Parts: sequence; structure tokens; C-alpha cells
Amino acid sequence: MTRWVEETLHPNFRCALKADRVLYENQTEHQHLIIFDNETFGRVMMLDGVVQLSTTDEFIYHEMMSHVPLFSLGAERAKRVLIIGGGDGGVMREVLKHKSVERCVLVDIDRTVVDLSKEHLPEVSQGAFDDPRAEVIIADGVKYVAETDERFDAIIVDSTEPVGPAAVLFTRGFFEGCARALNKPGVLITQNGLPFMHPDHLRGTMELFSTIFADRATYLVDQPTYFGGPFALAWASNDTSLRDTPLDEIAKRHAASGIPTRYYTPDVHKAAFALPGYVAKLSV
Amino acid sequence: MTRWVEETLHPNFRCALKADRVLYENQTEHQHLIIFDNETFGRVMMLDGVVQLSTTDEFIYHEMMSHVPLFSLGAERAKRVLIIGGGDGGVMREVLKHKSVERCVLVDIDRTVVDLSKEHLPEVSQGAFDDPRAEVIIADGVKYVAETDERFDAIIVDSTEPVGPAAVLFTRGFFEGCARALNKPGVLITQNGLPFMHPDHLRGTMELFSTIFADRATYLVDQPTYFGGPFALAWASNDTSLRDTPLDEIAKRHAASGIPTRYYTPDVHKAAFALPGYVAKLSV
Repeated sequence: MTRWVEETLHPNFRCALKADRVLYENQTEHQHLIIFDNETFGRVMMLDGVVQLSTTDEFIYHEMMSHVPLFSLGAERAKRVLIIGGGDGGVMREVLKHKSVERCVLVDIDRTVVDLSKEHLPEVSQGAFDDPRAEVIIADGVKYVAETDERFDAIIVDSTEPVGPAAVLFTRGFFEGCARALNKPGVLITQNGLPFMHPDHLRGTMELFSTIFADRATYLVDQPTYFGGPFALAWASNDTSLRDTPLDEIAKRHAASGIPTRYYTPDVHKAAFALPGYVAKLSV
Repeated sequence: MTRWVEETLHPNFRCALKADRVLYENQTEHQHLIIFDNETFGRVMMLDGVVQLSTTDEFIYHEMMSHVPLFSLGAERAKRVLIIGGGDGGVMREVLKHKSVERCVLVDIDRTVVDLSKEHLPEVSQGAFDDPRAEVIIADGVKYVAETDERFDAIIVDSTEPVGPAAVLFTRGFFEGCARALNKPGVLITQNGLPFMHPDHLRGTMELFSTIFADRATYLVDQPTYFGGPFALAWASNDTSLRDTPLDEIAKRHAASGIPTRYYTPDVHKAAFALPGYVAKLSV
């Protein structure tokens, strides 16, 4: 009998994906994890009842979380990158496409996510974990940014929703740790959910950013498997000029990199910061 | 017992909305129609198993279908508007906010949609049907554009998906009729579904536009209740310069109009045409 795997994120609407084949399902030490195949979306991973990625559309936010900060920094300054979460390896894959990147550290709290992604979702990491520039650390991201002696040009937080194990990744303490671990100029990127469905999520992050970082902004992507409107990514930087890098300079850097992209373009990079009125209102 | 109303658009995933109260459900002469209340999305209308509008997010595409063409034309040239479909009155409401508009004709094939929208969704039309500049004609849109002696500065096609009664609104014959009924300069706007889920829908329209109109383009909005990625609107014009109206001119017109918007801004107007790579590929 066909199984339908339901999302449990929203009380008044629910989406379900047909599971043609379940590859793995278990309660890890930290969360409920299921990996299955769906004819439309490919291989899908859900954590605690929320779609985390599908192999047909993961390129969208993985590209936009990686290339927006790194092309804003430019090859001269995009050398050391820290990823918090992102245990599937998709952000790391995109980051390591930048030849300028000399080191990429990924800190995920859940070893099972990393191991199962390597086993069942190899097309997401595409060998990134084996890159000599990559290091994977299984640890608490909050503790890591508070204690590390390393400094990073970009920190990318690819987390789950702010419930369960990821809740601490949306707190003042964590963001202050990120500010501490950033070079200058440096950029922090976080995921901030669906502003139409959960406006307080983005508003809360923007309020914290306003007291910690010199510059902050929201940009949007459209993720087909995150049902319920645009998906917000947040930008914070200790440098107010970085976000204003002109379009022609971004385009020059993108062309020089030779990185093929399926969603990201320099025009989309700039356009993503143009916020619909109802989203702009959430950014203080 | 709580009823969940399911969308039947996609074979491998399904979304269902909780119906706290069903106000109307029937098979009209042309399609299955249900109107119900949902705690998250407000009052919802579905036609043939597909969400058409919810009162919490209809402002998004109604604003973007109306203000993008009308501010591109400017008050001097945005005087006569034809709406095909749109029987709920939402596009007409936004169009009539433009004081420059002298006449707005709405042609819908289904009287029941118009009547039930007036009764159960009055906050969508907000009195637009009673505006002295408005005329509602219950007729076949294909026949109307082929035969009318009137000429319009903008034609906005607010239709259902290209199955069932709306299939004819995505054909060469219909688009040629629209071209015939347009003033010069004039703009045609159509809805073209979800390019991530149904790429052929947008591709097909763009192919037809390329042989009929001097200028064509796609722009995107993000509609929370249209599950499955960005929602494509298509632009066609007999004037190649109209789409290039500079941002500062659009902003001047928007400010002068005094029209309050919740999604549309001049920046969003321009940004909506910046297409992610995978969508750009569909536009020939």
C-alpha cells in the first residue's frame, strides 16, 4: 500500500508526499529522520515532520545561501567558511566550488544526519566531504562559535526550524558567537523560515541582528518543497558596504568563477533583496 | 468532524486545507466550486480541486497582475482595461484603484463564480462591481476578444489552470484575439502556473507569444496557497520599450497614484522579472 508522509509543521493545512520507497526511518539521538523517494521531488529527507531537502529542488537554497555571501565578498576575501548544520553536505558542495575557499568547516550536532546523507543522498554532497579543504566536526554549533580560535569570512547556518535541537541557533548567544568568529569584513547567513506563515521567526532574528551587526537584511528564495510562501534567508555583516557590491561587479565575479548555477544568477542575487511590502515590514 | 479539503492538482504530493466551515459547495455549469473558511488562510475558494484564492494572500497576485502593467503604461495611457476571468473581482478592485482608468470590462464565462464571490467573498471585490467604470459580461472570453470593437490598453487574464473551461485561454486563437483587442502600446498579462511543477505550461505560452507579440517576458510572484514553487505571470506587448520603463519613473508613478499596496513595490516590480536560471530556460 502506498504510504503518504505528512508534514506536521502547520496546524490548518498539511502537505503529504507520496513515498514510493522508504530508505530509512528512525528516531536519532536528536530528532525523527526519514528518507524516502517521491516521483515528483526525487529523494526527500524530513526531520521532525518537516521537509528538509529534496534532490530536485535543494539546489535553490544551497546555491543562494552560498553564492550570495561568497560573490559579495569576492575571491580575494572568500577564503574561510564555517557551516553550522547543513549535515547533508549541500551548502558545502556549493561553497567548495569557489576556488578561492581554502578551508570549509562544517559543524553539525547530529552525526546520523551526516552519515545517512553520505549513504542515501550522495548526489547532494557530491564528494564535498572528501575535499581536502573540508573538515566535519560533530559538535554543538553554539559552543563551537563561542570557543573557536578560528575566524571565518562567511558563516552559513543551514539549520532546521527554530523548534527542537535548532532552537538555540536563533538566540542572542549564538549570534554573538557568530559575530565573534567572523573576520572583518565577514557575513553571516541564516535561514529564517516562511515569513508569510511564521512572521515572528524572521522578525525575531532581525531584532537580534539590529543590536549585534552593523548591517542586516533579508533576502528571499522560492523553495517548491517548503510549502507556504517565500523562504527567508537573513544577512548580517560587520561591514555596511558589502551588501552594496554593484551588480556588474557581482556578474564579473560570477563569470570569472566558472561556477555553473541553476537558480543563482547575479540578477537574481540582487533581486532577492527586493522585499514584498508585507515582508519588508518584518525587518526592523 | 473536521473536514479536510484536498487539492487534486499533483499526483505525487497533496495539500489539504482544514475547512472549519463550508459556505458553499456545488458543481456549477462549468466546474466544481467550494468556498470554505480556514483558520490560517481565511476564506478559500477552490475550483475543480485547485485553490483559486484565499482572502489572506489574494492581494499578492491581484496586485502584481494589475499594477505591473498599469504602472508600466502610466496614467496617461492606462485608461481602458479588459479582464478575462477574475470573476471574484480581485483584479478589478486593484485596477479601479488607478484613477486614470476610465473603463474596466470583466468577461467571465461562469456567472456562478461572480455571484458567489459577491455573496461570500465581498472583501475581495470591495464594491468594484458597483463602480460606474466597471462592466461585467458573462461570456466566452475567446469569442469576446475575437469580436469586440473595443480596444484596451491592458488585458489581464485571471484564469484557472489550463485544464477544463480555461484550456482555451492558453491557445493561439485566444492570444491572437488579445493582440487584436489591444491598443498600441498595450500589454497582455496571463497567469502561467508553477514553472517548477509544470514547466510546459509557461514554455507553451512563451512559444506562442514569440510568434504573436513584439515583446514577451515572465515575471514571478510567490503565492503561499499555490503550493509548489513560484507562480509565473506572463507579459506580452506590442511595444518593446514599455517593459524597460526605468525604476525611478515607476516609483514616481506609484507614489503619485497614492495606491496602498501590501506586496507590490516598484523594486519588487522590477525584481520580479529577474528569473532563476531554471525558469529563464523556459522562456524562448
